[in-house]
Amino acid sequence: MNPTYEKYKELLSRLADVQYAQALLNWDQETYMPKAGADQRAQQISTLSGIAHNLSVSPELEEVLLKLENDNTLGEKEKRNIAQSLKNFRLSKKYTQVFVEEMSKAISEAFQSWQQAKEANDFSLYAPALKKLVALKREECRIIGFKGHPYDAMLDQYEPEASTADLTVLFADVRTQLVDFVKQIAACPQNEDSFMFKHYPADKQWHFGLDMLRQMGYDFDAGRQDLSSHPFTTNFGPKDVRVTTRIAEDNFNEMTWSCIHEGGHALYEQGLPVSEYGLPSGEYVSLGIHESQSRLWENNVARNLPYWKCNLPALKGLFPENLAGVTPEGFYKAINKVQPSLIRTNADELTYHFHVLIRFEIEKALIEGSIEVNDLPLIWNAKYKEYLGLDVPSDALGVLQDIHWSHGSFGYFPTYSLGSFYAAQFYRKAQKEIPDLEAEIERGNMHPLLEWLRTHIHSKGKFYTAENLCINITGEKLNFKYFMEYARVKYGALYPLQTESITR
Amino acid sequence: MNPTYEKYKELLSRLADVQYAQALLNWDQETYMPKAGADQRAQQISTLSGIAHNLSVSPELEEVLLKLENDNTLGEKEKRNIAQSLKNFRLSKKYTQVFVEEMSKAISEAFQSWQQAKEANDFSLYAPALKKLVALKREECRIIGFKGHPYDAMLDQYEPEASTADLTVLFADVRTQLVDFVKQIAACPQNEDSFMFKHYPADKQWHFGLDMLRQMGYDFDAGRQDLSSHPFTTNFGPKDVRVTTRIAEDNFNEMTWSCIHEGGHALYEQGLPVSEYGLPSGEYVSLGIHESQSRLWENNVARNLPYWKCNLPALKGLFPENLAGVTPEGFYKAINKVQPSLIRTNADELTYHFHVLIRFEIEKALIEGSIEVNDLPLIWNAKYKEYLGLDVPSDALGVLQDIHWSHGSFGYFPTYSLGSFYAAQFYRKAQKEIPDLEAEIERGNMHPLLEWLRTHIHSKGKFYTAENLCINITGEKLNFKYFMEYARVKYGALYPLQTESITR
Repeated sequence: MNPTYEKYKELLSRLADVQYAQALLNWDQETYMPKAGADQRAQQISTLSGIAHNLSVSPELEEVLLKLENDNTLGEKEKRNIAQSLKNFRLSKKYTQVFVEEMSKAISEAFQSWQQAKEANDFSLYAPALKKLVALKREECRIIGFKGHPYDAMLDQYEPEASTADLTVLFADVRTQLVDFVKQIAACPQNEDSFMFKHYPADKQWHFGLDMLRQMGYDFDAGRQDLSSHPFTTNFGPKDVRVTTRIAEDNFNEMTWSCIHEGGHALYEQGLPVSEYGLPSGEYVSLGIHESQSRLWENNVARNLPYWKCNLPALKGLFPENLAGVTPEGFYKAINKVQPSLIRTNADELTYHFHVLIRFEIEKALIEGSIEVNDLPLIWNAKYKEYLGLDVPSDALGVLQDIHWSHGSFGYFPTYSLGSFYAAQFYRKAQKEIPDLEAEIERGNMHPLLEWLRTHIHSKGKFYTAENLCINITGEKLNFKYFMEYARVKYGALYPLQTESITR
Repeated sequence: MNPTYEKYKELLSRLADVQYAQALLNWDQETYMPKAGADQRAQQISTLSGIAHNLSVSPELEEVLLKLENDNTLGEKEKRNIAQSLKNFRLSKKYTQVFVEEMSKAISEAFQSWQQAKEANDFSLYAPALKKLVALKREECRIIGFKGHPYDAMLDQYEPEASTADLTVLFADVRTQLVDFVKQIAACPQNEDSFMFKHYPADKQWHFGLDMLRQMGYDFDAGRQDLSSHPFTTNFGPKDVRVTTRIAEDNFNEMTWSCIHEGGHALYEQGLPVSEYGLPSGEYVSLGIHESQSRLWENNVARNLPYWKCNLPALKGLFPENLAGVTPEGFYKAINKVQPSLIRTNADELTYHFHVLIRFEIEKALIEGSIEVNDLPLIWNAKYKEYLGLDVPSDALGVLQDIHWSHGSFGYFPTYSLGSFYAAQFYRKAQKEIPDLEAEIERGNMHPLLEWLRTHIHSKGKFYTAENLCINITGEKLNFKYFMEYARVKYGALYPLQTESITR
């Protein structure tokens, strides 16, 4: 036992305790808090956030980290923890109290004016606050520092060691390959999915959602599902990982995909090593890898035929009238309808990436200063026309649709696409390594897949970078071709496309 | 504006934020937390508790308090706040880190061994840990300091400025007056209440409980009800005050009285002044006064005939078969059955005070050192025989029944009786000051009573001591005669007693 390392663990565990308490305040705010509690709750969250910040830059922690930085007796895992904690510590130290408060104020103003602007469908109400926020974000990039592009500093917060240059190449692939492919689909007759929009009573949907989570291997002794207006996953350690969902009685898609998606996130958190509480080795790798877990379950597993061959009978038992005559194949077609649309969160799994691409291009340009806030609606609308062929009828359905910028989250959007692309590459590998994977899924046995994810991803914590994790598992770094291959095979069978030869 | 006083407010508000966050961790633990989360939750609570302690003894707070102690420009409310905060500060400073940790360990051991002992029905499993804890409690009395009896130091934590001497006189009255009175009742034929134990489905009970809370004036925009195994009230500021209840389908009493009781506590918290967040002026006076609010609603309002003249029809609408032929008078008799019993929490409103009396006598003797832990079962059983005429068949149904000692809570029990006695005195005054109070209750109009409580008690925060508050409202300090008078009038009508002349 190394007493300095033990002290380090104790300090990080204490920091995690405060952060998890803050996470519970947030969870409660979104689920059960009575509405009059909002003001005091915001203040309580802010106080805990300040305490967590103080703990993350404490002289006590600094002393311990500097001692351990040069401790050659540490094992590999311990060395990696110290390196990552030092990176976090040095990053946190760069922020002055004045800057943090200025940013916090700017975010609060931007969030309020974004809400008003969205309500009033008028971007100009949001522009002044967003301008101030973007200016601060540009400053933040300088504070953090970067090697290549200033946007690298933003990306690093969500996707450590991702670079703007790499993402630019990746999204160029998305644009060139996916735009054409979706155009081919759009030229085909559309799949029938009207039965998804019949009346599905909430309580039956709720219980079906719980069954899907159980089948995936979600542990209800270490988690629970509740309702909230926006579905999310949160956790207070790996033994208490909670998901939320929302239910629309006139759209069966709503609950289904949010439930499976959040379930995928939750399985990752439940699989992180309990003994590493509060340490980097007990944390997820990056948001992109986190998203790979939700997307893998949502798209590769559940938007697939074997999953519904298994689960459609039970669903038909619950909603016999709605689904009379619907076959697994018909259901599979309905849930994989591809159609350009205005709102990112409602997009199908292909056109989704155009939404991200547009945001990536805009964020990058905003941060480098080559475009300005006032031009956003024009630029937004032009890109939606170019990539999705759509006319944006209003700011509310366009540039004002997402909460992210008003929260100061620049650099977050790309992780959604990264998640899908990693998922395709991981799932492809899982198919090769797990005997009869899809036959097991068709039997409702998700265990082999979950075990595979546990072994290769969940149990590793943050020991590897996203890139190295991907290389370890698949033999190469992220490669967009796996997603395109998945898309071509799947949608080539779902729509009568004039495609090149398909190999699998 | 006094900048030092503003700083004081800011520091206390920050402390309250942490304490309320801790309260939410506790609430969640009792309501929604998945079971595997227990260990990490305990640690998170302990970390926040440590942070709160550090904030409560910070040099920054000390400096501000010492400056304000001699600030003659402060108003009365501000002066009182500073005096109370200084008292808290000086008390907290008396505890060394070593003592706090020793106590925390002793409590954790006592709690575990209490659970085992209760399960095994064997006090000897609990005795060693309790001995250690009692020794520490005796030491704590010396650390805190006291003027008269060492037990004063314990009482002061729950009932500031209460004295062992005063309580000894009070409980002597309880013994001499109540013991005889209950003996007279016990000699009478018993009231019929078997309809309370029919099958009452949980969901209907739940909704009836919500209606009772609404009728009392509980604000669901600033609170909510949930289920837990032990009912409690908690709050995270006066705009988020939550109650819990439990439901027994074979005993309608369970939900009903816990719901109204916790509702009474919650109305007090919802009525505290919002602007005084975190300050003594925004806090309840004492546990005795808090309990007076729950008991007043539970006993004086709801164990009364007008309340059920109003609410029985709705209840009969929900449970027509269970309550066929039951009149308000019959219902009133059933819910006021007096009968000596072994378990405090199931006791009626008269014999309840013998349970408290016994605990008071034992605690006082334990703390002063005139009895020892090993003798507790014998002493306990002898007192149950003497005051309640009951043979205690087992430790589980006797000395092991309450959680309090294992939590280190000595001095807490007396506040339960104080609550009932204050309630009787307050209610008597309310009857005089509110025109037709019981006629309003019979109409389901609780508003005049709630307004009276808001004006005279809730809105005052901790500005007065319990004694002064009582004098302000009723013209005299706590006087047991009001409770006895209430008991004599009420039970004289419910049972065919050979009483002295009854005056009202």
